[in-house]
Amino acid sequence: MQATPLLGVPPDAIAAAARRVMMRCEELARVTATVGTVERVYLSPEHARVNRLAAEWMRELGMRAWQDAAGNQCGRIAPVNDLDPDATSAPALMLGSHLDTVLDAGRYDGIVGVLIALEVVRLVRVPTATGWAVPFPFAVEIMAFSDEEGTRFGKALLGSSAVAGQWNDAWWQLTDADGVSLRQAFLEFGLDPSRVGEAARRPDELVGYLEAHIEQGPELDRAGEPLAVVSSIASARRFHLLVEGEARHAGGTPYDMRRDALLGASEAALAVERICADEHHIVGTVGRFDAFPGAVNVIPGEVRFSLDLRGEFDGERDRVWDALARDFDEIMGRRGLRWSAREVHSAPAVFCAPLLQDVVRAGIDSTLPYRAEEPPVIFSRAGHDAMAIGSVTDVGMLFLRNPDGISHHPDEAVSAQDVAHGIRALAESVLRLAKEPR
Amino acid sequence: MQATPLLGVPPDAIAAAARRVMMRCEELARVTATVGTVERVYLSPEHARVNRLAAEWMRELGMRAWQDAAGNQCGRIAPVNDLDPDATSAPALMLGSHLDTVLDAGRYDGIVGVLIALEVVRLVRVPTATGWAVPFPFAVEIMAFSDEEGTRFGKALLGSSAVAGQWNDAWWQLTDADGVSLRQAFLEFGLDPSRVGEAARRPDELVGYLEAHIEQGPELDRAGEPLAVVSSIASARRFHLLVEGEARHAGGTPYDMRRDALLGASEAALAVERICADEHHIVGTVGRFDAFPGAVNVIPGEVRFSLDLRGEFDGERDRVWDALARDFDEIMGRRGLRWSAREVHSAPAVFCAPLLQDVVRAGIDSTLPYRAEEPPVIFSRAGHDAMAIGSVTDVGMLFLRNPDGISHHPDEAVSAQDVAHGIRALAESVLRLAKEPR
Repeated sequence: MQATPLLGVPPDAIAAAARRVMMRCEELARVTATVGTVERVYLSPEHARVNRLAAEWMRELGMRAWQDAAGNQCGRIAPVNDLDPDATSAPALMLGSHLDTVLDAGRYDGIVGVLIALEVVRLVRVPTATGWAVPFPFAVEIMAFSDEEGTRFGKALLGSSAVAGQWNDAWWQLTDADGVSLRQAFLEFGLDPSRVGEAARRPDELVGYLEAHIEQGPELDRAGEPLAVVSSIASARRFHLLVEGEARHAGGTPYDMRRDALLGASEAALAVERICADEHHIVGTVGRFDAFPGAVNVIPGEVRFSLDLRGEFDGERDRVWDALARDFDEIMGRRGLRWSAREVHSAPAVFCAPLLQDVVRAGIDSTLPYRAEEPPVIFSRAGHDAMAIGSVTDVGMLFLRNPDGISHHPDEAVSAQDVAHGIRALAESVLRLAKEPR
Repeated sequence: MQATPLLGVPPDAIAAAARRVMMRCEELARVTATVGTVERVYLSPEHARVNRLAAEWMRELGMRAWQDAAGNQCGRIAPVNDLDPDATSAPALMLGSHLDTVLDAGRYDGIVGVLIALEVVRLVRVPTATGWAVPFPFAVEIMAFSDEEGTRFGKALLGSSAVAGQWNDAWWQLTDADGVSLRQAFLEFGLDPSRVGEAARRPDELVGYLEAHIEQGPELDRAGEPLAVVSSIASARRFHLLVEGEARHAGGTPYDMRRDALLGASEAALAVERICADEHHIVGTVGRFDAFPGAVNVIPGEVRFSLDLRGEFDGERDRVWDALARDFDEIMGRRGLRWSAREVHSAPAVFCAPLLQDVVRAGIDSTLPYRAEEPPVIFSRAGHDAMAIGSVTDVGMLFLRNPDGISHHPDEAVSAQDVAHGIRALAESVLRLAKEPR
């Protein structure tokens, strides 16, 4: 059932590559804003440090390395068999993922995809004693995206949106928890806001985009499979919600005079669970929740909370948001509260290109046995840089098993064995793509 | 029905006193840690500034003024008719309230009681052209307590507990939001933690304690009455609660694998409302609520929230806490969460002494007409310094109408007219007490 491998490297080279990925995950985890946890947000000093590390690792493979106008760390190696004297104009296959993290993060989400991409370039594009593994009709680029999580400014995919040419000037006004605007943060990082458009890539510069990523869910672990082809990436919307009541003395105010914003917001959070859990493939999460004034003896007059809503299809997701809004109206009306929502992120579902799904499937196929007739195919509930890049070129993704599905948490894990499988499968995918007629 | 006034001052002296109270409320409101709001917490630079102002106002009345070992601002005027050469040893009637505030506070809670006390001393103890209003068998002291709200360290009544000799050495380890311990804060304020016991007063040094305070509830406003006698002060307990689940990726984790601490804590907050609202004279409030890690795309793995529980009787209050704990067990068990509670404050119900209730009633009685046969009598759901002082001497309280019952909020109000009534009523109460045989 398995396809024949194209990659002619000994198993110990793959094992060494996987060990290097695991070691570098540890090295990057130490670049953190808060010692003892992993915290690396967009345009922070930690962001600059990991970019420098990634650039060094790219150059070590003979790649040209640069930081783009949105703070993404980029590397490029020209096509070997390119007859064009200007190799820099050749279209590129882009491999990558992101180096930023959530708060109190794990060590693999995004990071492992960038590091696997480096090993794939090492395996397929660095000449060995026996020469090149395969002639290449395209350049290979690695993108270490600078902001996928949206931790700092509440807006996800800032780095990849810039590369996709989807930057929105309204984002300059976004502020972080300290009130620093995105524009200010650009300047402090040494970037020129007026030049962010230079990060954008044109469709004709790109052959496609392939990303390896941990699943961030339990399906592969439950199925006992190390790798999966990704079919599509969830449609997502994010909201900042505000509930307004009246701050009053906790002792003196009887229940019939209270307009407690915290109780309204608590009901809303429970409504999100109730309504989404009834739907197929829809999840809604309240991740931030701040009550004001936040004193032990004061009834909260205001609550701000976030809602993250994901589904396989845009229409379903929007229908659920409408149902939630009707429920919020009922809750807040009954409690004498006002509520409002500001949408801070919206991304349609993105479907992986059939050709790229095929090469990823063939890459897995040639790498390891699996239980079913075909490698597992998974719909990704988590968002990825591939979502943004999908608007400028075809995208494909490979998932690695994520024990117990724990992600965005210090216990997030991936095994060195699965990383080895992932490196081999992605390298095989790239080699297959290089052999495709175009 | 009204009793004959003892206070022989013209109405315009009372009106001037009320205007001074209102002006000083504004002046103190400007001493704030956050401009545009009122925020003055224990052992802060603002605390030191209002103590200096209060000391100045005390000295202006001929009082001896000092800051005690717990940061309370104290003033004392000796009994005029004291035949004892050592006037400092005479027992004192203590008048007072507190100068600290909650976050984003109003301008009257506590403050107005201290300022009314100053005006009462001015009216009854400062000689006029016609001499003293009445011979005094006791000294009069004013206490401007330094911490009633517990805003900074989560433990209320720190200032008055020190005066009551109820200081607990375990409190030294309490920390504020910045991790500063109470011990450190003492040192930084210039106080010596080892000498806090010197703030304690002996029962034989005190005649009793009278406190004027805004109602912090709507009952007087609803009844159209400006003043009330307080019968007792609510029994209160405060808890810090911790709910622990598991932080996970908001997209990738299906509902059956979530252990969402925020949803458990939301259910708990709603259970507090449901269980307390079913009881007579019990209120429970969740005022603080912090979700961790607090990222838009991470399921909260931990929530910390506060519970403030008050009732007229200790037994009822404790029975409600037991019912809540059983409910929390059910909620958290069903959701795969752990929960725990740390009690940070506990105060039994305190009943105002019959004699002091009588003099306050007579004070109101001689001051203004009211609708019922007797002045209104109210049970205070809010805690007050009188609760702590109740363990060292008899306490009595006078409530002032609080429009719409709004307190712990910038809209907190009291009218100058009601303050004038309050000054006159408290002065009459003090004069009546001075005439009591002892």
